[in-house]
Amino acid sequence: MIGVFDSGVGGLTVIKEIFKELPGYQIIYFGDTARLPYGTKGADFVKKYSLKISQWLLQRGAKVIVIACHTSSAWASESLKKQFAGIPIFEMINPGVKEAVKITKNKKIGIIGTPGTIKSGAWEKKLLELEPNLKIYSKSCPLFVPLVEEGWINKEITREIIEEYLEEFKNRGVDTLVLACTHYPILEKIIKKEIGPKIKIVNPARSLVKELKLFLKNNPKIVSQVKKGRNHQFFFSDQPYNLEKISHFCLNKKIKPIIKDPF
Amino acid sequence: MIGVFDSGVGGLTVIKEIFKELPGYQIIYFGDTARLPYGTKGADFVKKYSLKISQWLLQRGAKVIVIACHTSSAWASESLKKQFAGIPIFEMINPGVKEAVKITKNKKIGIIGTPGTIKSGAWEKKLLELEPNLKIYSKSCPLFVPLVEEGWINKEITREIIEEYLEEFKNRGVDTLVLACTHYPILEKIIKKEIGPKIKIVNPARSLVKELKLFLKNNPKIVSQVKKGRNHQFFFSDQPYNLEKISHFCLNKKIKPIIKDPF
Repeated sequence: MIGVFDSGVGGLTVIKEIFKELPGYQIIYFGDTARLPYGTKGADFVKKYSLKISQWLLQRGAKVIVIACHTSSAWASESLKKQFAGIPIFEMINPGVKEAVKITKNKKIGIIGTPGTIKSGAWEKKLLELEPNLKIYSKSCPLFVPLVEEGWINKEITREIIEEYLEEFKNRGVDTLVLACTHYPILEKIIKKEIGPKIKIVNPARSLVKELKLFLKNNPKIVSQVKKGRNHQFFFSDQPYNLEKISHFCLNKKIKPIIKDPF
Repeated sequence: MIGVFDSGVGGLTVIKEIFKELPGYQIIYFGDTARLPYGTKGADFVKKYSLKISQWLLQRGAKVIVIACHTSSAWASESLKKQFAGIPIFEMINPGVKEAVKITKNKKIGIIGTPGTIKSGAWEKKLLELEPNLKIYSKSCPLFVPLVEEGWINKEITREIIEEYLEEFKNRGVDTLVLACTHYPILEKIIKKEIGPKIKIVNPARSLVKELKLFLKNNPKIVSQVKKGRNHQFFFSDQPYNLEKISHFCLNKKIKPIIKDPF
């Protein structure tokens, strides 16, 4: 079983990529809706709950942990790797960093995310470790998550808010833009339209799942594939808001949430 | 001391009214930023933390509890009154309900709030108990809180979002609109401009503080006034986002947050 967690429903954009690329695997998902959003929380808080959730997923049979939350990836992935040595742990930042560095030609990269992710500086740090000559422009876009949660995907207002947030990236001449929040891929099409064809988009969910796919191919014994009767489980620590809409946008189908707060 | 709590910084709109109407009293404020927003959480969760926070405020010397959060007012005020019998507890709904019923002439009332408050149906229920012949139109406006938290108060986009959400109230001919979320009074001016002069606005923070003022006048021994050297305390369970902007909008000054999660 692949264990995936996020602060809420945004991680379903990662599930979307897993369903597409790794259809033979069973998923156990935990969305910490009781404590969302992580993006405005402190590092200690995010670390504490990321550890608790990972422990819980492992107890329930997960053999691999996917941190589908950017804030957790930024602040908790090192602690998790230490705490659960030997368990393969995948997070959103390293795969996206590698992809962004591979894609950029003019070495100007834009990053958008929640305030927590941007404030953490984790993306800048990792990008510069890999390629010290980058120029990086970061910006938090706190309205994107509620826009997605409201289901306002194709509205004119959404386009205007995207324009308001992203205009500066065009002016600064970035050629690569990283969507450093799990919800943002739901806005990918309209973001793409707004920023134009010259700026390439990195969706770290896709980058992560590419790495996960390669890992599972090279290590086929760690997680077994299930031929028939896959029983994906979607846990949420509190009733998720607008789940039906979001799961429709991400997965094109309904999912049956199990409401349970084990903490 | 007057104990005031909210899920975050929105309760500062209540503090604004207290500072205006009751300048002689000392405030202890708790904003549960570690667990915000309450608006999308379940009733049990909101009840549990409202109880814990009230207990904590009382332990620290509060003699009166003000529930500055609409979701807590809807779901937790009855439990709090039972649990802390003898302690004066003020909440946002009853005072606002009385004021709305007093103001409306055509008996058509609009309510806007977070999904949690609207879903609870608490406002409709209380309004209809007091005046069964009302026509009530409720709507959740999940983007208003992040707009305020982002500090986008006077932007054209904000006006457009307000228009999008509130147009139906004009069409339906309501003559009274209740701002059933603590953040919304920060948008009051622009909401007023958008809905026009025919619709009167009820700001429950004002209604509550009017009642609190009367109560303290009639019961002068319960909370003592402090003539000099008032030491207001503003606790938050996690670093609040954009506090400087919000406190500027609400109080026209900075406040010094104390970050502490006692739970």
